[in-house]
Parts: sequence; C-alpha cells; structure tokens
Amino acid sequence: MNPFLGASKDRKNSRILISGIPFDGTSSFRAGSRFAPASIREASQSIETYSVYQDRCLDDFKFFDAGDIDISPGDTKRAVKKVFRFARKNSDKILVSLGGEHLVTLGLVQALHERYKDMILVCLDAHTDLRDNYLGIKLSHATVLRRIVDMGLKVVLLGARSGTKEEFEFARKNNILHSFDDFKKMDYIIKGKKIYVSIDMDVFDPGFVPGVSNPEAGGINFIDFMKWLKEFPFQSVIGVDVVEINPGCDPSFISSVFAAKLLREILIRLSYQIKT
Amino acid sequence: MNPFLGASKDRKNSRILISGIPFDGTSSFRAGSRFAPASIREASQSIETYSVYQDRCLDDFKFFDAGDIDISPGDTKRAVKKVFRFARKNSDKILVSLGGEHLVTLGLVQALHERYKDMILVCLDAHTDLRDNYLGIKLSHATVLRRIVDMGLKVVLLGARSGTKEEFEFARKNNILHSFDDFKKMDYIIKGKKIYVSIDMDVFDPGFVPGVSNPEAGGINFIDFMKWLKEFPFQSVIGVDVVEINPGCDPSFISSVFAAKLLREILIRLSYQIKT
Amino acid sequence: MNPFLGASKDRKNSRILISGIPFDGTSSFRAGSRFAPASIREASQSIETYSVYQDRCLDDFKFFDAGDIDISPGDTKRAVKKVFRFARKNSDKILVSLGGEHLVTLGLVQALHERYKDMILVCLDAHTDLRDNYLGIKLSHATVLRRIVDMGLKVVLLGARSGTKEEFEFARKNNILHSFDDFKKMDYIIKGKKIYVSIDMDVFDPGFVPGVSNPEAGGINFIDFMKWLKEFPFQSVIGVDVVEINPGCDPSFISSVFAAKLLREILIRLSYQIKT
Amino acid sequence: MNPFLGASKDRKNSRILISGIPFDGTSSFRAGSRFAPASIREASQSIETYSVYQDRCLDDFKFFDAGDIDISPGDTKRAVKKVFRFARKNSDKILVSLGGEHLVTLGLVQALHERYKDMILVCLDAHTDLRDNYLGIKLSHATVLRRIVDMGLKVVLLGARSGTKEEFEFARKNNILHSFDDFKKMDYIIKGKKIYVSIDMDVFDPGFVPGVSNPEAGGINFIDFMKWLKEFPFQSVIGVDVVEINPGCDPSFISSVFAAKLLREILIRLSYQIKT
Amino acid sequence: MNPFLGASKDRKNSRILISGIPFDGTSSFRAGSRFAPASIREASQSIETYSVYQDRCLDDFKFFDAGDIDISPGDTKRAVKKVFRFARKNSDKILVSLGGEHLVTLGLVQALHERYKDMILVCLDAHTDLRDNYLGIKLSHATVLRRIVDMGLKVVLLGARSGTKEEFEFARKNNILHSFDDFKKMDYIIKGKKIYVSIDMDVFDPGFVPGVSNPEAGGINFIDFMKWLKEFPFQSVIGVDVVEINPGCDPSFISSVFAAKLLREILIRLSYQIKT
Amino acid sequence: MNPFLGASKDRKNSRILISGIPFDGTSSFRAGSRFAPASIREASQSIETYSVYQDRCLDDFKFFDAGDIDISPGDTKRAVKKVFRFARKNSDKILVSLGGEHLVTLGLVQALHERYKDMILVCLDAHTDLRDNYLGIKLSHATVLRRIVDMGLKVVLLGARSGTKEEFEFARKNNILHSFDDFKKMDYIIKGKKIYVSIDMDVFDPGFVPGVSNPEAGGINFIDFMKWLKEFPFQSVIGVDVVEINPGCDPSFISSVFAAKLLREILIRLSYQIKT
Repeated sequence: MNPFLGASKDRKNSRILISGIPFDGTSSFRAGSRFAPASIREASQSIETYSVYQDRCLDDFKFFDAGDIDISPGDTKRAVKKVFRFARKNSDKILVSLGGEHLVTLGLVQALHERYKDMILVCLDAHTDLRDNYLGIKLSHATVLRRIVDMGLKVVLLGARSGTKEEFEFARKNNILHSFDDFKKMDYIIKGKKIYVSIDMDVFDPGFVPGVSNPEAGGINFIDFMKWLKEFPFQSVIGVDVVEINPGCDPSFISSVFAAKLLREILIRLSYQIKT
Repeated sequence: MNPFLGASKDRKNSRILISGIPFDGTSSFRAGSRFAPASIREASQSIETYSVYQDRCLDDFKFFDAGDIDISPGDTKRAVKKVFRFARKNSDKILVSLGGEHLVTLGLVQALHERYKDMILVCLDAHTDLRDNYLGIKLSHATVLRRIVDMGLKVVLLGARSGTKEEFEFARKNNILHSFDDFKKMDYIIKGKKIYVSIDMDVFDPGFVPGVSNPEAGGINFIDFMKWLKEFPFQSVIGVDVVEINPGCDPSFISSVFAAKLLREILIRLSYQIKT
Repeated sequence: MNPFLGASKDRKNSRILISGIPFDGTSSFRAGSRFAPASIREASQSIETYSVYQDRCLDDFKFFDAGDIDISPGDTKRAVKKVFRFARKNSDKILVSLGGEHLVTLGLVQALHERYKDMILVCLDAHTDLRDNYLGIKLSHATVLRRIVDMGLKVVLLGARSGTKEEFEFARKNNILHSFDDFKKMDYIIKGKKIYVSIDMDVFDPGFVPGVSNPEAGGINFIDFMKWLKEFPFQSVIGVDVVEINPGCDPSFISSVFAAKLLREILIRLSYQIKT
Repeated sequence: MNPFLGASKDRKNSRILISGIPFDGTSSFRAGSRFAPASIREASQSIETYSVYQDRCLDDFKFFDAGDIDISPGDTKRAVKKVFRFARKNSDKILVSLGGEHLVTLGLVQALHERYKDMILVCLDAHTDLRDNYLGIKLSHATVLRRIVDMGLKVVLLGARSGTKEEFEFARKNNILHSFDDFKKMDYIIKGKKIYVSIDMDVFDPGFVPGVSNPEAGGINFIDFMKWLKEFPFQSVIGVDVVEINPGCDPSFISSVFAAKLLREILIRLSYQIKT
Repeated sequence: MNPFLGASKDRKNSRILISGIPFDGTSSFRAGSRFAPASIREASQSIETYSVYQDRCLDDFKFFDAGDIDISPGDTKRAVKKVFRFARKNSDKILVSLGGEHLVTLGLVQALHERYKDMILVCLDAHTDLRDNYLGIKLSHATVLRRIVDMGLKVVLLGARSGTKEEFEFARKNNILHSFDDFKKMDYIIKGKKIYVSIDMDVFDPGFVPGVSNPEAGGINFIDFMKWLKEFPFQSVIGVDVVEINPGCDPSFISSVFAAKLLREILIRLSYQIKT
Repeated sequence: MNPFLGASKDRKNSRILISGIPFDGTSSFRAGSRFAPASIREASQSIETYSVYQDRCLDDFKFFDAGDIDISPGDTKRAVKKVFRFARKNSDKILVSLGGEHLVTLGLVQALHERYKDMILVCLDAHTDLRDNYLGIKLSHATVLRRIVDMGLKVVLLGARSGTKEEFEFARKNNILHSFDDFKKMDYIIKGKKIYVSIDMDVFDPGFVPGVSNPEAGGINFIDFMKWLKEFPFQSVIGVDVVEINPGCDPSFISSVFAAKLLREILIRLSYQIKT
C-alpha cells in the first residue's frame, strides 16, 4: 500500500497521524466502505500536494500514514475496540482517520475523550445517525451519534437532511442541528472546547460524491465545504475522520478523488496548528 | 416485488394509488426505463419515511402500491391502451405513476381527462416532446406532449432546454413554455383547474440524475425542485407521473434513490389533500 | 419481492421451502452476497419453469418461497442464531436456502441436525473452509466446515482447490476430500444417511460464474454439475443451500441467471422425493 | 459508422452484403441488442482480416457493408416490414445480417423465401422460440421460429436448451431439434435445399458470450462452433444472421469481439461459394 | 464512423472543420481519451441540432467533419507532428478539434501560429499544465501550456484550481491566471488578437463531467460556461479544441453527451463569424 | 503498495525477484495494462499461499517483490530502456515481471540475453506479434516477437490463433509455431538452453480472462495451463513475464485473481530450482 500523498516517513516527528479503518460490518444498504482507505490513498496519487485554496503544500509539514488498522470482518464489538485501542495508543497525535463506515467514529471518540474530557463532536452528515438501535442492533452506523450523545458528549450536526421523525425530534430537543454558517449560534458551544470533526461523505450531494453507501440528494458541494473549512476554528480540532466513501459504487472514481482532495485541504488546515 | 416504502396494505381507504408502468418501447436512444419502477421501489427501502423538508411522514397517511401494470413488449398502441384502462379503472384515486418512458403519460392523461374535463397538464421536462411524429411514428416519447395538445389540453412546460426549432416555435406560439418561478404568469392558466403533473426526470441536471434515457446538461437540482414543490398548488393535482429514469445507465444507483426521495416528497405534498 | 419462479402460494402443502438469507457479515474480500437472494429471484423471472434436462416443470409440484429471513447487519452470532431458529421451525420441510455467505450453512445444519441425527454434509466448494479461526474469528465463511466437523458431522467436500496447507492436511486426515465422480468411494459414507447439500457457487469456474465473493480459477461448469446432480442420491437430501453469489461483482448478470437455473434443476430433482 | 473490417467499397461486385438491423422492440428481459451492429463493427477493428482457422483473408474476396437499416423504435410490424423490404431488394446477394433481436430473422426469411421456394432454416439458439404468442403478442423474439414454421418452412434447431414444455413437444413432434454433429440424421432434410442460417448468440455459453439478452448456461464454445462451421454445407447457404448480442450487458466487450470474429469466419466460409 | 451531428458533406464550402485526434499517449493517470472523438460523435446523435440558448441550428451553416487524424500509438513526437501537419494543411479553416489528451493542443497551436503570428491562447482547464517537464518528459499533457508559453505565445488560463506551487508561481508571474468574468482585466490582452480556445473538459466539475482523465472537484457547470461563451469575443476565435474527455471512466455516458452539446454551442457561436 | 502475497522482505537471499512494469504506451486498442501490477498484487491478497496443485507454499521459499519500475508515460524507447536497465541490474535473479503490455518483454529479454547468450524465448500468446512494424511503429506490442527474432533469438510460440497472413507465414517459415503438448517436437529446440517464458494473458480464453487488451476467442483454460506448467522444463527457466492483463476491462475482477493464482503456481514451480 502506498501511503497518502506527501506523507512523511518520520512517524515520531509527525504531529498528524493518518490511519485507514477498513470496517463496514454494519452497513445496512451497500457494504464496501472497507475499500475506501485503499481507494482514497490511490486517488491521492492523482492530485497535487499543493493547495491553491490555502497556498500551502503537503510537503510543508510532516504527517505520517500508519496504514490500515487490522480488522477482522464479522465481529462489530471487537472492531470498535480495536479502533479504540489504536486511537488511545496514538492520542498524542492529531488523528486523521479514513473509514470505513461511520461506526468507526465511536472508537475514535471514546479514545480521544479519555484524553480530552472537554471535547465536543462536530459532525457533517446527511443523516442524523441518532437512533437508539437499528433493527435491534445498538452498535451501528445508524446509531453512532446516539452512542456518542450517550457518552455525555455534546454533538453538533451540520448538513443533516435525512432521519426518522424521532431522530429529528431528539436532535432538536438536544440542540444538535445546526447549519453550516451559523458560527455565531454555535459559538457558545464550541468556544474553548477541543473539537473532534467527523465527516460522513454523504453530507455532499451525490451528484458530486456518488460513491457513498447511502446517497441523499440535496447536499453541499466542494466550494461550500471549503468556505466552512476556512472559517471553522480548526486550531481546536484534535481529530478528524472521513467516512462512508464506498468506492465500488462509483466506477468513475470521482468520489475517491474528491475525498483525497478534501483530505489534503483538511491536512493543510490542520498544519497551521503545528506551527503554533 | 416489495411495495414502495411506507405503502399501506389497505387499497380501499388509500386516496393515493402508486403503480409502475414498465414500458420503454419507443425509446430512441437507450431503452431501459422499463426497469425503473422496480429500481425506485428498491431504492425507496434505503431512505426514511420521514421528510424533514415537510416535517411529515409517509406513515401519517395511506397510499397503496398496486404494483406494475402488465405490459407485453412490442406493441405500443396496446401498451398505451393498457395504461389507459388501468388509469380509467382507478381514476377515483390520485394516481402516482412510475414510468417507464414518457409516452405512458398519454394513457394516463387520456383516462383522467375523461373524468376531469377541465384539467391541464404541467410537465417538467428537459425536452419539448412536441413533435408531430418521430421518424414517422406518431406514438412516441418524443411526441407525447403534442398528442396531449392534440387532445385539446392546455400544456405548461417547465425546464425545457432541448428540442427542434419547430417544437420551440410551436411551444412559443401556444404559450407552453414557462419557467419554474413565474407562478404569476401561469396563474390565469392554472387557476381553478385540475392539474396533472408529469415529471420527466431529465429535467434535472444529469450531474444529479445521470440515469436517464436522454441526459441534457444544464438542468435543475433537488433544492430547486423542493422550492417549486412547496409553492405549486398541489391541492389541485389529480395525478403525477415520474418517468424516464433508466437505472441501467447509472451504476452508482443515485438516480433511483433520487427518484425515490422525490416521490416521497410528492406523496407527502399530495397527502395534504387527503385531510381536506 | 417477487417469489422464485413457479413458487406456489400454498405454504402448507409445499414439501419444499425456499428462503433467502441476506447475510454477508464475515466476507473478508468482497461483501455483497446479501443481495443474492433478491438477484436470483429476479433472474428466475428470465428463465422457463420447464427443464429439458429432466423433462419436468416447476409447476408440476409445490414449493413455497418464504422470502428472506430478517437479519440485522453487524452481529454475526445473532445472525447465525436467526438462521438456526428459522430452520428449526421449518425443519419438517426440505429447506432450500439462498445465501448470503457460506456461514449461513452453519445455522441451517445445526437446526436440521436436531431432527436428523444421522445426517452428513456434502459440500461443493472451491475452498476448504476448514480453518479453526479466520483472523481470530471463530464464526466465519472461512471456518464454516470446521465448525460443522466440530459438531460431529461427517463432511464430504467436492471441488475444493484452494485452502491453506493445514486445511488440506486436516481434510485428508479426515477423509473429507472427494471428487465429483467417485460415487463408489463415497458410497459407504453416504449410504443410508440423510444428506444436506451445500453449494458454494465458487465451485464453478469464474468464467461461468464471475459474480462470487472469492473467484477461484479451474472450476467445474454447468454440464459437469448436471451430470453430478442426476447421479447423486437426491432422494436422501433433506436440505440444500446455494451460497456466495455476489451479484454486484457481475454486471453481466450471468451469475444470478446461472444460479436461478441451477436452483430450478435442484428443485425439480428434489421434487421426485415428493412423489414417493 | 466504420464498415465491418475488410469490407469492400464496391457494392455492385460484392456477392455478400452485410447490414445491421438495430431493432430490439420485443425484448422481454433486457433490451439493448439495437446497439449490437455498431458494437460488432467497432469490435471488428480490433481483430485481423486473416483467419488462421481457414487460412484465408477477408481481403481475398469482396463483401459490402450496407450500414444499418433505418428502423424507428415503437412499431414492431413496421420494423419487420422494413427488414423484409430491405432483404427483398437485396435478395440477389448473400445476406449477412447483424441483429438486433431474433425477430429480425422473420423479415429476412420472408424475403428470401420469395426467391428460394425450397429453402430451409437452420437455427443455432439456446431457446426454442416456438411459442405461438408471447404474453399475447404474435410478433416476438420468442415466437419467431413458430412464425417461420407457420410459413411452411422446415426448421432445424441446434443447441436448444431452454423453452416451455409445449415448445419442446412441438419441436419434437415436428422433428425440429437436432444436435451439432448428427449431420447424417439431418442429411435428408438439408440435401439439395437452399439454407438460411440464423445464429442467436445465446447458443454459446454465457461464460464466453455474456453480452446477450437472455443468457442460458450450458452452451457451446468457439471451438465447437468452428468444427460445425467447417463441416456444415455452407455452399448451400443463401443468408446468415447473427442476433441477440447485447453489448450493454458486457462491459468487458468480449461478446462483441467474439461476434466479430465469428462473423469473419462465416464470411470467409461463405466466400468459397463466390469462387464456384 | 458517423460524422458529428449536422455536419455538411461539402468540405470545400465549410468554413469550420471538425477533426478527432485519438491520442492519449502521455496520460499519467487514466488513459482512454483516445476514445473521446468516437464517443462524442455518437453522443451527438442523441441531441438536437437546434440550440434554444442561441436560437440557431447546426443546419443553418456549413461545417465539415474530417474524421479522425490517423495516429499510431507509441510515439509522442510523431503524434504531435501529425497533428501539426494536419492543422497546417487545414489552417484556412476554423479548426474545431476533439481530443484526445491535452498535448494535442501543442500541434494545433504550432500550426495556427504559423499563419496567425499575433494569436494568443485562452485555455479553460482545472490544471495549470505549466510544468517544464513531467517525470522527465518534455512533451506531456502536464507540460503543454508551458511548451506554448515557450513558443512565445501569451496564455490566458481560466478555471485553474490544481497544480504545483511552482506552476502557480509561474502563472502568477506571467499573468496567466484569470477568472471567467473579468473580461475587463483581460481586455488589453485579448483586444485585436486572434484567439485560440482550448477547453480541457476537467474545467467542469466532475459531478457534471465525471468522464475525464483527471477529475478535480470544485469546477464550473454548463450554465457558467454558456454565460462565458456568450460574452467572450468569439468573432476573433480561429480554432477551438475540446480535450480530455475519457468515456471509459463514465459508464453513464453523460460526459460525452455534455461534450457534444458544448460542441454544438461552440459551433453555433462560431457560425456568426461566417456571416461576417 | 502491498507486495505480492507471501513475498519475503529479504531481497538479498531471494533467488526470485518480482517487479511490476506499468507501461502500456503502444496499446492500439484499449490501454490500461499499466494498472495490472497493482491489480494483481491486490488480487493476490485474496488467494492462499498454498497450492494444492503442487502441494507447496509460497512461504516455503524466498522471493522478493521489488515494486514497480518507474516509467514516465509518453516515451516508448525510454520505457524499454528503463526496463532493460532494471533487468540488467537484477539479471542474477530469476526475474518474474508483471506487465504492462507485451513490449516490456523486449527490454527484459535484451538484458537477460546479455547474460545468457544461449537463451530462447517461449511465448504463450493468442497473437503472433511478429509484424515488422505496426502502423509505422517499430517498437510495439504487435512487433515485440519480431524484434526478438531480429536479435537472433529462437522463439517458440504456443497458443497463437490471431495475426496477419504474413505473420503466420513468417512464423511457419521460422518454425515458431508449436502446440502445447508437442514437447517432443520442441525438444531439440529447448534442450540445454536457458529459457525465458513470456505469457501474454490473452492466450487464455476471454471467457476465463476477460480483462485483457485484445480478447481473442478460442483460448486455453487454467487446467490446460497447469498441465503444461507441470510438464515444461522449468528448471531451465531464467525469467518469466505475465503481460497484457487490463483490469479496467473486467469489473468482475476475475482476470486479476486468475493472474495472481497463475503467478503463484509459476513461483512455486520456479522454486524447485532454488533447492537444486
């Protein structure tokens, strides 16, 4: 496996650590996000290290690609635990993780929460993912935000446009739903907190990212995202994941290339932390 | 065949009746819209019954899915007649029909016109479909609106961006072309009339709905549609069809999921009639 | 969901019961066999009820299609248990099951073994599936035959051409490996026993059945299979499963049509039991 | 459109005339054979003009590619009539036609029968195509051989392995079914007759030709075909068609390349007539 | 090969000459743009000759489709030279060329530059293409604009959003980067010059044109392009190319249809020159 | 990039060296074999290290995977030279190379010929590849065997079934054509010579290996190959290449898995040399 474009070979001095989490065991519709880390790394070879949006290069700072976490298919609890252990062991880094399905966020957040008691989760997602259980299953991509709320974390959800009535009611009651540009309304939530950012790629319109497990029309585009990326307080971000890319659903490969470019922009945005 | 998401089993008390019309016999470019009803029903299983756009659920009212009309391939006249007979028999319901190609609208409109003398057709379509004949053929997806004009119906066409010079001249002469937001200009046409709405899915930009028989760049998106849906007087709508999805042309499956979501929104919008 | 071609609506008087088991949770390479039951049923609509190979029709006897077992993704043990319960409840029928991955055989065999103490398993498979664990997991498509050996059942494996050295050694030591035409050598094993037949579709050459999770060159073809089908003592067969078709891997759809035809032949072959 | 590989520009002096018939209006399962003529011509550019099997070149004789017959989708009768008229007008040539679906054979045979009263039809096909009607339709790919029997022509069917019980009974009663190598048994039928050869590409195993409308496992391969081609009395053949290739069903493109190669061999085999 | 939709057969009196250049020899990521000319011509058959955007028809003026330039794969220098020779021979026409990859622009510009000393290049492209060499290779799709700058031509680049830091610095230093609507800022560059327009189709967002060799998120759409097309001084344009469509990357075919429509609009826009 | 299944990390003590050669610059029909090395390595992860055919494991001996040779697209001569240099530098190993297109064999053979003056080439290929030039190009996948004959090497060609008349005449004149089982007739050619084996994967029937650049019906299957592999004197083989897999042409992925399995069998067969 080739590491992500521009990754350093110096793990020790890399403040940012990329890993792949090829798990899609609870996918209810189309499995296949397990192939996303490999696909996004491959796609990264087709783009440049330089971002004209931020006028900075992946080569201007150090990040390490630790490869994929080794996950055996067929045991969800064990998978989440493996993610948790990996994240705990590396929680001194800024963790940038490539799913896999959205449930992997649970293990990542659990581990970082041990270190950052005061952290919150900001999630970009077309779906609310707030069910208490999904077809009787507690650990699922469809329940992941609920599990995180259960942990006592504050969750801010951007871009949600699909869910059950109950989920949306729960979200409204708990002040979870926000929109991309009401930074002021969010301010009191975010201020002074460590922030974990989880990006379910279906937050984007399927026209631009068709290769996701659950496409949901009416989403944002790359320009919208870049605007948010620039304005959001990334200096407080202690981890990011990019999940639910499903390369097998997109023979044109544009989804993986999109994700690779997005990841480049995120890495560069995070790199400003390193200087401080 | 699983019925459309959230469909009731109570035909009698369902005010809205869904049916599939797997006919694509006159498709001139890529046949395959015959597979749309099955594909859209399957896709509907991957979305939620709740619409956050309208804050209402498919479970909040009753609609029945009558399955597919049985159509033998190879005889166009017979196919249109079958659609006509089915529609006539069920014209006491609000008919929501899944094409199939656009010609199926002819049979549907013929039947409803028997009951609603004063009805008009509002059609969302990238193409004018106003030819008098297509390669010598009178009954065709490319002539369907002309046939309906021939019946004496007023036709309002939204989103048209492709056609012959003759078709556009005919359309202008007959005041057929309108744009999505000039409700005022349309007002005198629509007012007090029963309205049949025909949605050729190629009205959307192929970026968002690539799986159509005749993709035509420069179309609308889901947000545009939702704005129209909310403002258009759906209390007067007595039938809707959604045609020309061609699932085989879209391996990413986003087109069928888009159509399923669109249909959910239409059904919910129509459901407000039931209460009245 | 349309039932399998030619299925009766009379469950009670159907001696044979088809069910789909859309589970692929332990797939290590390409998931997607969960879509096989729907795909094979759809494919069955494109073939005839009559078999010229056996000069008999699916309409000549009664079999019932019970639809799919409801399985939530993400919990393997629970899934196997669900299969087990379904099979136990219906063990008075000849169970013909459509996977899903090969692990589903475990639940089926467990249930039938309660009723038929003296049963053996005859398995057609390119892989040995005899590992004690797979990447630390005990319940897996790669361990399923070992789990069944652990239950004390005699296993006869036909067509195996892939596995670890340990698996093949285990298989040889336990006299598990046989070839398609050494009925005489098998005779002492089979004679007088109730037989469960499990067909992993990768036993066929990927040239003929490309849509499997783990393609393995050098397999049999349809003619080879029909020869075996006719000669094997199907009057003693108390259950059959057809697993590991992965429709998403085969855009040509020939794999699902192949499986549908194979299933027709199996059903007809089993139907001779009913007359006795 | 590029003409078929090696075609002459000299229509007048070409004894063999190729044409494409892009009609698939009665396809019951997957339409798309309308794209076969273009696809096979394109595929022909990727093979050589020389056949090592017959040690002869397409350049060694003259054949003309007349392009496609212009067929409007949506009117089956009209389509058959167009084929008929084209064939009648060119019946002084040896007609080699590229379907399209199998129904096109009807128009071709009708026209040639006018000229050759004593002709018979030899058909290679996985399906019997002998229904009296198909879902109420008389003109269909599934009834085409019955319509030809109705005309009073003797039909010899090779490779059939699918059909209804009634079709097989009809076929047996009328001595229609034969196997590829019983030339002796066929001899009294064929002897002294002009022969039209119709090749439904699904006679081949779908493993080798996946791109057909109705794949049917258990067919012949290229070697089998070449053996038959060499032994069959092609000096009496007055027309050949190659139908039911459906390029959209085979993204690997091997089916169209297979058909192009097969066509080269047929053309070369027919070319020996020219010398006589 | 069918010529592009609406092409005249009268080469002599056609002021505009279309040609295909099926060369993709330096493609670094996904080759396949060699198939674009055939694919775009085929796609053109599915659209109309009339443009409602410009209220004019392809039939209202004469343009000739000269087919494809014959290029042997494997020798880049030779390929560029062939393009050059073809263009020089036809430089009295307005050349509208269908790539192939972007390097073909070099041969075209070299030839036209002989005739029009004072010409400039306006290029729509997501990538800067300004490297001095690419992996040691001087002639490459990634260096093409640099080679043209080397020739002494002024280059104006619109839509660029990807490149190395060095390329962007070079571009800024040389005042190459512009945006779609700053016609005023460009005015002094363009005024009085003959203009060659090169359109790398990846300037469009991959959501709308997924079938390109190097998809790059964040691009323009069809509406944006039409606005530019109408305002840009096309009366001074002496050649246009449309490159980097890669049909094999887009099974939905929307990219080729998009390019065909774009080409129709360009042809019609150019046709106003003919009248002058 | 993950190395090929079971590869050792000990380059020095590995007698066999694998490398990938991602070059497809002269592909005349469908480019894309550049992606084969990555695809075959990925596919190798889905098979076992143990071969039941030879009862031996990839782990039983040492081979090293050197990754891919770095080749810039667009310069054929330079590419061949790069292959040559790599091979010369490593000619003390048994080189097992993954194409890429067939032209890569030229560089490999040139290098090994320096060391082994008395070597011959045994080539499995559906095509003769014996043209003197291809469309004017001397260095091409279609001329590679001719270039090697030009070097003075004896060439033995197995499985050829496509080529021009001239190529076959040249082949016959030079006693190049042989069949898979006439070891006796070949004996005098092979005896005492060092042998380089080049396997163009299109020697296999496209039914089994659809993902090749130039599919050619009527080829061998895996069983045929294994028979040959076992009987051919591999103790004299000093290099093997496996070329022309084109993964993009085979969405089912069976071609790459086939190639990976074939490579495993070749590696194990070669490993017997190591012991001697």
